[in-house]
Amino acid sequence: MFGTMMDNPLSITLIIEHANQIHGEKYVYSLSPDGKIHNYTYSNLYSRTMKLADAITQLGIQQGEVIGTFSSNNHQHLELCFAIPISGSVIHPLNIKLSPVQLSKIIREADDKIIFVDGMIYDKYVNLCNQIEGIYSIVFNLQNSQNELSCEYEKLLTNARDNYTTDIQDENMAMALCYTSGTNGEPKGVLYTHRSMLLHTLAVNQADVFGLTEADVVMPLVPLYHAMGWGLHYAAMFVGADLVLTDPINQHIIDLIAETKVTVAAGVPTLWKKLIPELLKRKNDVPSLQRIIVGGEPMPEDLIEIYEKELNIEIRHAWGMTEMSPTGTFSILKKKHQKLSDEEKYKIKALQGQPIPGVQLRLVDENQCILPNDGICVGEVQVKSPWTANSYFKKGLDDSLTKDGWLRTGDLATINEDGYMKIVDRSKSLIKSGGESISPMELEAALLKHPLVTDSSVVGISDEKWGERPIAVVAISDQDSDDISEILREHLSKDFPKFWIPDKFVIVEKIPKTGLGKTDKVAIRRTLDGVFTK
Amino acid sequence: MFGTMMDNPLSITLIIEHANQIHGEKYVYSLSPDGKIHNYTYSNLYSRTMKLADAITQLGIQQGEVIGTFSSNNHQHLELCFAIPISGSVIHPLNIKLSPVQLSKIIREADDKIIFVDGMIYDKYVNLCNQIEGIYSIVFNLQNSQNELSCEYEKLLTNARDNYTTDIQDENMAMALCYTSGTNGEPKGVLYTHRSMLLHTLAVNQADVFGLTEADVVMPLVPLYHAMGWGLHYAAMFVGADLVLTDPINQHIIDLIAETKVTVAAGVPTLWKKLIPELLKRKNDVPSLQRIIVGGEPMPEDLIEIYEKELNIEIRHAWGMTEMSPTGTFSILKKKHQKLSDEEKYKIKALQGQPIPGVQLRLVDENQCILPNDGICVGEVQVKSPWTANSYFKKGLDDSLTKDGWLRTGDLATINEDGYMKIVDRSKSLIKSGGESISPMELEAALLKHPLVTDSSVVGISDEKWGERPIAVVAISDQDSDDISEILREHLSKDFPKFWIPDKFVIVEKIPKTGLGKTDKVAIRRTLDGVFTK
Repeated sequence: MFGTMMDNPLSITLIIEHANQIHGEKYVYSLSPDGKIHNYTYSNLYSRTMKLADAITQLGIQQGEVIGTFSSNNHQHLELCFAIPISGSVIHPLNIKLSPVQLSKIIREADDKIIFVDGMIYDKYVNLCNQIEGIYSIVFNLQNSQNELSCEYEKLLTNARDNYTTDIQDENMAMALCYTSGTNGEPKGVLYTHRSMLLHTLAVNQADVFGLTEADVVMPLVPLYHAMGWGLHYAAMFVGADLVLTDPINQHIIDLIAETKVTVAAGVPTLWKKLIPELLKRKNDVPSLQRIIVGGEPMPEDLIEIYEKELNIEIRHAWGMTEMSPTGTFSILKKKHQKLSDEEKYKIKALQGQPIPGVQLRLVDENQCILPNDGICVGEVQVKSPWTANSYFKKGLDDSLTKDGWLRTGDLATINEDGYMKIVDRSKSLIKSGGESISPMELEAALLKHPLVTDSSVVGISDEKWGERPIAVVAISDQDSDDISEILREHLSKDFPKFWIPDKFVIVEKIPKTGLGKTDKVAIRRTLDGVFTK
Repeated sequence: MFGTMMDNPLSITLIIEHANQIHGEKYVYSLSPDGKIHNYTYSNLYSRTMKLADAITQLGIQQGEVIGTFSSNNHQHLELCFAIPISGSVIHPLNIKLSPVQLSKIIREADDKIIFVDGMIYDKYVNLCNQIEGIYSIVFNLQNSQNELSCEYEKLLTNARDNYTTDIQDENMAMALCYTSGTNGEPKGVLYTHRSMLLHTLAVNQADVFGLTEADVVMPLVPLYHAMGWGLHYAAMFVGADLVLTDPINQHIIDLIAETKVTVAAGVPTLWKKLIPELLKRKNDVPSLQRIIVGGEPMPEDLIEIYEKELNIEIRHAWGMTEMSPTGTFSILKKKHQKLSDEEKYKIKALQGQPIPGVQLRLVDENQCILPNDGICVGEVQVKSPWTANSYFKKGLDDSLTKDGWLRTGDLATINEDGYMKIVDRSKSLIKSGGESISPMELEAALLKHPLVTDSSVVGISDEKWGERPIAVVAISDQDSDDISEILREHLSKDFPKFWIPDKFVIVEKIPKTGLGKTDKVAIRRTLDGVFTK
């Protein structure tokens, strides 16, 4: 028997309509090309967005066609995040850090019909232009000095009609195309739907997840092309929080937090590590900042301690994947943990955490048998949720999905009795030495704890005797340190068995990163090939 | 173009699976027949629920068939709230306050196949038995003294298999049948779906709505037969909060709050008014209580003031309907209101509030034109959300739905610029006197503010000269007060025009209530007929 409830499609239209009607006076802040803070209200955002949606349909874009964006975080990008899906087409935020060759390949696969380009990074876009001839681009956010480019974006808005009404009839319509980081092979596209994005928004706005409220001022220091900026802009707008838009590379983040009174910020651990000295110095400038959402990579215990103890800022540590929209787990303390010592608390907070309501997690062994949540058994994490991908764009069903419909994450982990997951490593990156497994991730985390180490990566290289042996590539703060290898060897010996200690410590200036800011192990291997063939 | 996301059905199975796997050690407290507090964990609840679901299918109940419950709030009723829908059938919580004649009519319409009966109120059920011959009943929660009844419930559990797995393939399957209060005519059934209930749960768990967390201990003082107890049990379990189950008529509520350290409670304003003297006296016994969710009827400003100022308990004032699962609006302050005086704050909190994320509200006039949100225009409230009914059980589409798919609530209200709704009255209960409208609700609220008045109801009776005139029926605390009519007339004259003042004040011992605890205007009219024909 079916129910008698309305069959309103779940759609992101609900978010912007709500923000406009109930929180129309709240603000969106972003940086202008002149370096000043631009601000306008949700009502302004709404009327510009509806005009933009109208303009997009007037450009002849059909339902389901893909539109690229090549942009930093700013209010125009936010407008595009709503206007494109509301017009029935699909937004495809391009990773501006990828090479023109990588990007053009992705753009061809996605079949982008138009690309909206941020004038502030037009020089980067120019390099891409030759590769993607024939694709029409529309530029916004122009500096005065770039007057040779016409700012067609504002012209589009001026000419658009005012009374656009959206008509998302099917909640399973695609609304965004996001590519994975491609750390294991080629980047693959995930097609988020209106349904999955609205559900993700409701799920992360639970009090125990992002926990955003109308009183918050939210600053996502996550580019929109990373799994749609972790959905923070949608989440903030649905509750009526103010939004502050900028990029993690902004040199004046602390000034911006002080000026706009940010209460919740979000970003990757390396950013939060980098900001510590300035934050410690300018603690009194940013009393508004209460909470930081950290994801993308594991947040080390000692970083959590500095933020919580010295800066009095709560850390909420998350884990997810582009395939999960992206939020999967959240590490916050349970009531029973309140009586623990600070050190024990930080240990728990450094775990990847519990699945958020709506997400299911399980561990399986190599034979696809389900393992117990005992904090000991290590298995592959498999996930299921209404906001998880079941296939990839134009790839169809591949072996990422189990027969019973769970997504294989490729991450190895334990889950304890309280449901807290701890990622041990990527299943494909474990180093097999003499039949035993060595986890590069654990070694990297331990290396990072040494005060001289600013970044590190551990990879396995073939070894006649042992099959594989670990090599550590390390960036250090003091290039003149003597005997750094000996120091690090001793440092690791405290925590790891002898066979885990890397055979060699290669000191580099900088660890190479992928366009998504993750360690580029392929580039590292190339460097090592150089070292070992010398 | 469709997305590449999993099409997992939204279902309440997700709630109990999550509670069991992630919060298995959290508690459900409820009162045993011997008056002691029964408690068990979510893990215990889960295994009993899965056995019960198996037992229900073994009883031969088919998918989509309806099962009644006749019960107070207790852990068995909670088990039934999950087991029945998980087995594919539909739970129908019967309002134990209705008369046997009313109930049997509803049971026949619903076509209940079995009724699960709470042994603690078996004497009430006996009166119903003659009217519903042939319907099999299963009793639980028996006192020792009732040994003549066999406790089949526990036998069912003992005999059930342990490995029941649910298979809710379609999220639009009905999971619960709830009847409206029937203040305007016959009670009508609403068939909640797995989808609507899961979405309602996610929506109310937003930080700015119920805002429940794992650290909470939640006590719903709302019977499950009132729009499924406002969904509080589902909401609390999804975040892993402890649950305390009892009824609003329990004489030892404050003891129970003290003993189980309740942090969030929920109920109707009359209950909170009744509890004030004891709460003021025993303030130090219940320091855990932080927040109260109030709905069902408007919460007067002065009550809000006592709770927030004298008891330091936050009031979150809600409005909804059985047709809305039931949550529609929530009245909490915006950031900009924090600088207001306490009195101004209570005024805002006494409004019905803003639509929660996902709910859309609009005001329309008699010609179905949409009115502005200016805080002045009065119109009928119409609503839309993925958890709102679009028709009634076995009634099909009636005139409750507008042509463009909005539910007519029958409530008259204003909505201000900030989106806060204020209910002015039921559209059908306005008194038309000399062409002008008089709002019984506003008069009732004003009467309640007088210290002598414990309850009141204002109705219109026909009048040759004016068409209709208001009559006030008033329950007072001091039956010996002289000139009470004169006192109340003067009291009202301060706030209302002369023609609003009721022609007569009828003093009664108690205002008659419907089974849902709402003022029974039909019974009042009958009483008045007696008064005026004397």
